[in-house]
Amino acid sequence: MNPLSSNPQATPNRSPALTEPAGAAPYTITDREATRQAREQQVGQRPGTLNIRPGALKPRLFLMSYDDSTFTEQEYTDRYDELLDELRQHPELKHWIDVRGYGDLPLIEQMMQDFGLHPLQMEDVLNDYQRAKIDVFDDNRLFMVSRMTDFTRDLEIDDDQLSIFTGPNYVLTFQDDYDDCLDSLRTRIRSNFSTLRRHPVLYLAYALTDVVLDHYYPTMAAIGDYIEDLEEAIFADKRPRRLLNRILRIKKDVVRFRRLVYPERDKIAEILRLPEEIMPETLKIFYRDAYDHAIQALDLAESYRDNISSLTDLYLSDQGNRMNEVMKVLTIISTIFIPLSFVVGLYGMNFQHVDEHGHLLPRNMPELYSPWGYPMVLFAMGMVVATQLFYFYRKGWLTNR
Amino acid sequence: MNPLSSNPQATPNRSPALTEPAGAAPYTITDREATRQAREQQVGQRPGTLNIRPGALKPRLFLMSYDDSTFTEQEYTDRYDELLDELRQHPELKHWIDVRGYGDLPLIEQMMQDFGLHPLQMEDVLNDYQRAKIDVFDDNRLFMVSRMTDFTRDLEIDDDQLSIFTGPNYVLTFQDDYDDCLDSLRTRIRSNFSTLRRHPVLYLAYALTDVVLDHYYPTMAAIGDYIEDLEEAIFADKRPRRLLNRILRIKKDVVRFRRLVYPERDKIAEILRLPEEIMPETLKIFYRDAYDHAIQALDLAESYRDNISSLTDLYLSDQGNRMNEVMKVLTIISTIFIPLSFVVGLYGMNFQHVDEHGHLLPRNMPELYSPWGYPMVLFAMGMVVATQLFYFYRKGWLTNR
Amino acid sequence: MNPLSSNPQATPNRSPALTEPAGAAPYTITDREATRQAREQQVGQRPGTLNIRPGALKPRLFLMSYDDSTFTEQEYTDRYDELLDELRQHPELKHWIDVRGYGDLPLIEQMMQDFGLHPLQMEDVLNDYQRAKIDVFDDNRLFMVSRMTDFTRDLEIDDDQLSIFTGPNYVLTFQDDYDDCLDSLRTRIRSNFSTLRRHPVLYLAYALTDVVLDHYYPTMAAIGDYIEDLEEAIFADKRPRRLLNRILRIKKDVVRFRRLVYPERDKIAEILRLPEEIMPETLKIFYRDAYDHAIQALDLAESYRDNISSLTDLYLSDQGNRMNEVMKVLTIISTIFIPLSFVVGLYGMNFQHVDEHGHLLPRNMPELYSPWGYPMVLFAMGMVVATQLFYFYRKGWLTNR
Amino acid sequence: MNPLSSNPQATPNRSPALTEPAGAAPYTITDREATRQAREQQVGQRPGTLNIRPGALKPRLFLMSYDDSTFTEQEYTDRYDELLDELRQHPELKHWIDVRGYGDLPLIEQMMQDFGLHPLQMEDVLNDYQRAKIDVFDDNRLFMVSRMTDFTRDLEIDDDQLSIFTGPNYVLTFQDDYDDCLDSLRTRIRSNFSTLRRHPVLYLAYALTDVVLDHYYPTMAAIGDYIEDLEEAIFADKRPRRLLNRILRIKKDVVRFRRLVYPERDKIAEILRLPEEIMPETLKIFYRDAYDHAIQALDLAESYRDNISSLTDLYLSDQGNRMNEVMKVLTIISTIFIPLSFVVGLYGMNFQHVDEHGHLLPRNMPELYSPWGYPMVLFAMGMVVATQLFYFYRKGWLTNR
Amino acid sequence: MNPLSSNPQATPNRSPALTEPAGAAPYTITDREATRQAREQQVGQRPGTLNIRPGALKPRLFLMSYDDSTFTEQEYTDRYDELLDELRQHPELKHWIDVRGYGDLPLIEQMMQDFGLHPLQMEDVLNDYQRAKIDVFDDNRLFMVSRMTDFTRDLEIDDDQLSIFTGPNYVLTFQDDYDDCLDSLRTRIRSNFSTLRRHPVLYLAYALTDVVLDHYYPTMAAIGDYIEDLEEAIFADKRPRRLLNRILRIKKDVVRFRRLVYPERDKIAEILRLPEEIMPETLKIFYRDAYDHAIQALDLAESYRDNISSLTDLYLSDQGNRMNEVMKVLTIISTIFIPLSFVVGLYGMNFQHVDEHGHLLPRNMPELYSPWGYPMVLFAMGMVVATQLFYFYRKGWLTNR
Repeated sequence: MNPLSSNPQATPNRSPALTEPAGAAPYTITDREATRQAREQQVGQRPGTLNIRPGALKPRLFLMSYDDSTFTEQEYTDRYDELLDELRQHPELKHWIDVRGYGDLPLIEQMMQDFGLHPLQMEDVLNDYQRAKIDVFDDNRLFMVSRMTDFTRDLEIDDDQLSIFTGPNYVLTFQDDYDDCLDSLRTRIRSNFSTLRRHPVLYLAYALTDVVLDHYYPTMAAIGDYIEDLEEAIFADKRPRRLLNRILRIKKDVVRFRRLVYPERDKIAEILRLPEEIMPETLKIFYRDAYDHAIQALDLAESYRDNISSLTDLYLSDQGNRMNEVMKVLTIISTIFIPLSFVVGLYGMNFQHVDEHGHLLPRNMPELYSPWGYPMVLFAMGMVVATQLFYFYRKGWLTNR
Repeated sequence: MNPLSSNPQATPNRSPALTEPAGAAPYTITDREATRQAREQQVGQRPGTLNIRPGALKPRLFLMSYDDSTFTEQEYTDRYDELLDELRQHPELKHWIDVRGYGDLPLIEQMMQDFGLHPLQMEDVLNDYQRAKIDVFDDNRLFMVSRMTDFTRDLEIDDDQLSIFTGPNYVLTFQDDYDDCLDSLRTRIRSNFSTLRRHPVLYLAYALTDVVLDHYYPTMAAIGDYIEDLEEAIFADKRPRRLLNRILRIKKDVVRFRRLVYPERDKIAEILRLPEEIMPETLKIFYRDAYDHAIQALDLAESYRDNISSLTDLYLSDQGNRMNEVMKVLTIISTIFIPLSFVVGLYGMNFQHVDEHGHLLPRNMPELYSPWGYPMVLFAMGMVVATQLFYFYRKGWLTNR
Repeated sequence: MNPLSSNPQATPNRSPALTEPAGAAPYTITDREATRQAREQQVGQRPGTLNIRPGALKPRLFLMSYDDSTFTEQEYTDRYDELLDELRQHPELKHWIDVRGYGDLPLIEQMMQDFGLHPLQMEDVLNDYQRAKIDVFDDNRLFMVSRMTDFTRDLEIDDDQLSIFTGPNYVLTFQDDYDDCLDSLRTRIRSNFSTLRRHPVLYLAYALTDVVLDHYYPTMAAIGDYIEDLEEAIFADKRPRRLLNRILRIKKDVVRFRRLVYPERDKIAEILRLPEEIMPETLKIFYRDAYDHAIQALDLAESYRDNISSLTDLYLSDQGNRMNEVMKVLTIISTIFIPLSFVVGLYGMNFQHVDEHGHLLPRNMPELYSPWGYPMVLFAMGMVVATQLFYFYRKGWLTNR
Repeated sequence: MNPLSSNPQATPNRSPALTEPAGAAPYTITDREATRQAREQQVGQRPGTLNIRPGALKPRLFLMSYDDSTFTEQEYTDRYDELLDELRQHPELKHWIDVRGYGDLPLIEQMMQDFGLHPLQMEDVLNDYQRAKIDVFDDNRLFMVSRMTDFTRDLEIDDDQLSIFTGPNYVLTFQDDYDDCLDSLRTRIRSNFSTLRRHPVLYLAYALTDVVLDHYYPTMAAIGDYIEDLEEAIFADKRPRRLLNRILRIKKDVVRFRRLVYPERDKIAEILRLPEEIMPETLKIFYRDAYDHAIQALDLAESYRDNISSLTDLYLSDQGNRMNEVMKVLTIISTIFIPLSFVVGLYGMNFQHVDEHGHLLPRNMPELYSPWGYPMVLFAMGMVVATQLFYFYRKGWLTNR
Repeated sequence: MNPLSSNPQATPNRSPALTEPAGAAPYTITDREATRQAREQQVGQRPGTLNIRPGALKPRLFLMSYDDSTFTEQEYTDRYDELLDELRQHPELKHWIDVRGYGDLPLIEQMMQDFGLHPLQMEDVLNDYQRAKIDVFDDNRLFMVSRMTDFTRDLEIDDDQLSIFTGPNYVLTFQDDYDDCLDSLRTRIRSNFSTLRRHPVLYLAYALTDVVLDHYYPTMAAIGDYIEDLEEAIFADKRPRRLLNRILRIKKDVVRFRRLVYPERDKIAEILRLPEEIMPETLKIFYRDAYDHAIQALDLAESYRDNISSLTDLYLSDQGNRMNEVMKVLTIISTIFIPLSFVVGLYGMNFQHVDEHGHLLPRNMPELYSPWGYPMVLFAMGMVVATQLFYFYRKGWLTNR
């Protein structure tokens, strides 16, 4: 009953029947509460129970069949049986069955049975938040997960899951969305001159992994540019609002990106350790190259983390500098005027030069009666100000830091 | 004397008799001093000495017996002998003996003897703060500890211990509380269509581990939501009191959660390394799935830790910003009014225009006698204020940062 | 000449003679300078040179001899020869030779020779600051070091060294002090019903390790309580003086505790890796339990470290908050009164309404001559204050944050 | 067709033909947008597709041929065929083919074919940002990447890639630039007495690696000097603008340097693990020395990182100190003058000594009518100032910190 | 030609001739620029090229020859040939050839040839900044590097290199300086009763390593004392200038010390892994002891690092506290006097009680004409001050924190 599995006996311990329907009809609520309810519903379910995420898209099926000289490509949405027929009729070709969207449980279950997929792995496919990994079936078929990233306008890393099953002459991929980052690969397959068509079908699985990995670079580049913009914004006269908030948000992205790439690297390392009969040396040389790329992406992510941490330091130090500047303005103004105010207050006192009986009190503020009193006071105050300004100048308070 | 142990000779080096009663009668004091006294009492005791925690609940016993086609379920509280009889009469069935509450030392000791449990492991059961672990008996029976978490209303992670002993045809679990998170599993066993009933009894031990692991997700989700709430609270106009305190408390939870899950992951990794005769490959495929889940929970916990550390940064920076704002208000007010106050003080001085002998002193404050003196001073002060406001505006101090 | 060593040829490469006396007569100076002098004296000495720490206590010798049915216990201080006789006369019993105090070099050297102890290890014993470790002699005898902790009133972790040598039918322990934490173990040995007396003598070495490990918990509990007290003190209205100092001191303790327990854990892990002929599996099951305890103690220490780091954050943030509060009081007072002071200063100016020639100057401060001038100024100032208070209230500055 | 590859069958799985031209004609745009476009163009391309970086230099070809006694050196730019002839005519000599600049795709492809280079590795060569690494071909030839560093005037680490291919009697190097740091090595080869000419050709590959490693030290020294300059600048009276910015920039450099050296160390470690037939022990002794140098460079980089982190602490603390000083000036001035201003304000009050009806009001400010009123007030204010100055002096506020 | 090398064929691949003189005549410039020039000169040189550091001392040669019963000791400076004769004449004795100072290249090269030393290792000797390490020659001779530390008065760790070559019956040491820390070892050798003289010559190499290791403790102790002094200084009323600078400087020392000890530990660990024929078990027991010491030194260094990090926290918190205190003084003074100044300003206003036409304006400041006006205002102001003082007292601002 597993017409496409090379060896139907290879997975005897897997429960092929899925008699308990998951029950959750597809619906579309996206708010936090609904998501949590859905999550809690799954708690305690039998492992391997398939849950279609609320709001999942209706699956579209595509098939590319090729060898060195021939190539056909067609969409089989709603025509799964024809797709199967096509596969059965052309065992000599290599096939890429490309499923986009999960929103049809009976179809998914039918494919599980036909292709001999394990419910636990199918659960990983549908969960859609599985880290990159590789599982080896006991008949040497592979199950690989890659995460495709996209950096959206509002500074979020958007990551979708690409699940890859390999078979003797086919590669079967599942993804959540209709759009993906694999078009450049499709173009290469369509080309008659592509070396890809001459390699065994396992090379297609590699090519998928590699294209996903290649797409990490534009994401990283966008993050890198944004970090540079933030760095300039820190020293701008008018800092944007909630700048630190943005810095920490991009940091979150970088941290998340690292979490995405680490398992990817580990996955490739595991592939490199696979025995020759599962992964031939002629393919490993390509994975070794992909491994270098993953390392480099991690390296870059580490650099970004360092940069962001320096940014945070800069931000806080600049905040301190601005406070310092405010304090200096306050201090200069206060220090200049407070003594002057004392002086003018002093000569505002009402000590009488003549008491109530008309006697002269010559010691009470004779300055007020001096003909040069006012000009001299003004001059004295000017001297005080000049002294203070000189002191501040020497302290470097008058220059801009 | 070990009717349910497959091989009574398998544990010859374990001291079966527990002649020294632990002495501590069950009582209910929960304050710190009492707990410490209890703790100190245990210091220096013989390893394997059983201590019933003060306030432990009276044990309730439940039995579920099942195979593909039959299923019985009954409570045997206070009827331990009948439970034993039931087990002996149905060696062909799979049994789950479910003990809730530890408050009856003689019963516990009787069970230890009947099921051939080691005192050291029984001590781990009763201690109730053993990290997740797995021990393998020399007759291939297993002792596993899982920690069931709950996130309470007052932001505490509440964790209870689930101790699992496996035998040839039974699983024996101990827990402290009457309530637990295993009801979804019980429902699955009761269902006639459950694949669980067709698997060997070791699968039940797996299913228990898996259900506990599944319950980590709602806990994590609640923590995640709370962290988001805190993030919003930081920028609120009126920050809640002791906000940092709350941030650090949730951090404590996350750290504690990580400490719970790490041993869980290690336990599962150890299970995956068990030889085929103890843990067959058909079960390991399920544990591999559980391993992925544990890794994912750890990943999430790491993200939360990063988020909280960013929150702390944000909080402190915002605190600095608020201080900055206070300083700016002070500086603006002072800087505007201090010079004005000097001016008005200046013209409050009492320099006399006429000395005591009636001579005019024309250099003493002639402004006071000018017909436009007052309006011009007012105008000059207005100019000063305008200049200052313009300066502050350019500095960006008047805008809300 | 090694009457108690099972195999005198086993340690041929150890230099048995200690002809160079260490020279340092026991004296009692505890200040820093003296300690340093002592330390420097040892620099460059032959490895294995025995140095009695200044102020070491005179050794007291105790012997416990037991098997399943018999038990004798006696102090042999100053009667080492009789102790040896006792050991020789009862080769069928298990013995615990318990030496407390190091202050008698000739006795120590005599014991080294009689029991075949290596000078390097004896140096470790006397140094008294050896980390927990295990050495295996080539005749399968063991040398183990444990560190006994105590948490003193003045927040110091006091740790003493317990050195354990095992022989074919004895355990020989050395410690610095007359008092220790082993009394609960002694009580257990004295009991006729103790399982300890039925186990081989190696079990006694385990029991000693386990008791020491058990005593870590009260130390940890005391530290945990103190940390909680500190947490409350941070938010107290009157913070105790040098609170941060105390926080950092307890942190030092926790860090030190971790440093004590890590080698303890490593030691037990090494014991678990010993081959069967040195450490039988029947004992390893107990060490596995001790290993769990050591891990748990480390776990706790890690939690404490996290807590203390959070405490430091809290302290500094609270310090910032207090500064903020001071600033706010200053700002409110200044902001309210500075404009008012300007206004009253304004009307304190002496612009004359009539010049020196008696001409009216109607533009000079006509307000002063208005019948409602004073009340209106008072009202205007009241309005200013009300506006400011409203502004501060909206900012949340009037509430207690 | 691979005249210089020792074993043409050794790389059967490499696609020798490069029929798809990379298309991107060399052009010269260096701004961010252009770089990103180029990067994005490569995403999804077939692995092993060669892309010439926009602006790449036209390749110059150099050949050094030598053995113990003979030596020839010539530039073969635009004469690649003659170079090949030279190589074929002198199989008994050792050759260094030195290619500088990548800007000629057909030539690069021709060399790939002639020397049997793998497209993936050639891609690494042209990418020019490959970390240091070593690949071993299946015919024991090596591909090594080193990174040559330079520390530019504007505090940037400039790093160029040196790609080294080894063959039976040649070493083939690629680099991006016409200038490099290898001139000292060239001089050594030219010398008739150089031991280098007596070693096998693999030693040349070592010597190249070693020279590159040697050049790390001047870079490190320049960074070290700059760090010292920064340390002095922190305490300078007039701190340079954006000092922290510079500190963090040099930190970026150090971090980047570490990232450069780590793979270098790993590469050498991998070389040391190569089997004898690929890397003879007589060469490994030199690599072991290079390994020590790499470790030492890493050590130095670690020290620098620590120093920079201390610098940041110093900077922030000094910033705090400066704020403190500003606050102290403000506080001293305010504290001295505010009470004085109160006093002079007090005696500026207009309480009347005589009411409007001419009655004496003797309680209203009699001081104003005392003959010694003014001198006594001055004296009192002097006392207040003296008291305050004494208080500040005792606090240590008047001294410079 | 290698009269003292046990097996002249053992090092065939080492280039014995050093025909290229290093050229750099010994001179004495110590400034940064000169050092850098010297460094840059070495870049790109042939590995194994010997460079005498500018300013190197003229070598002094010492020889100690001993066995159980005989002992001779002599200086052979400028008499290298006689030293060689002495060695050849007494092959039955153990010799320590002790070379201090490197400043004579021809002598060094002669020794290299006579003792069969490898140029790369000799380069390590002369470089004088090689980390601790061990190299094993192919004829089982050893090359070890230790670093001798000294803690100078001006808080610098001074470290010199001790390079040790072992041979069949000799140990050959090189060091830079005439003074060292090995005198205690020399005294031990001179003593007739020393066990050192009975051990094989390899034990001398161990003893050298051990003495160097022993000298780490006084260095650590000095650092520890200094850290304690710093801790007290933080809370002193008058903090010393640039205290943080000192803290960070001692931190640099500790970090450097760790970097010294880590390779030392690794070296000893590598020695412990050497096969029995190179390092007999009878010696390893001593190295195991040295390993414990190295671990303990590292442990201490880690503690110091923690302490210093706590010191930094304390310093910054105390800095914050001092700022707080300054702010509180400012706030108290301002808050008390600003309202008072307002009041006195209020009654300094010149609102007229009689207008210019002689009409009474009774609403204008009637208080000024009240007989109790002045006393009541004084009383009111006293009340305000009392209220404020009470408020501050309750806030805890008047107490010293």
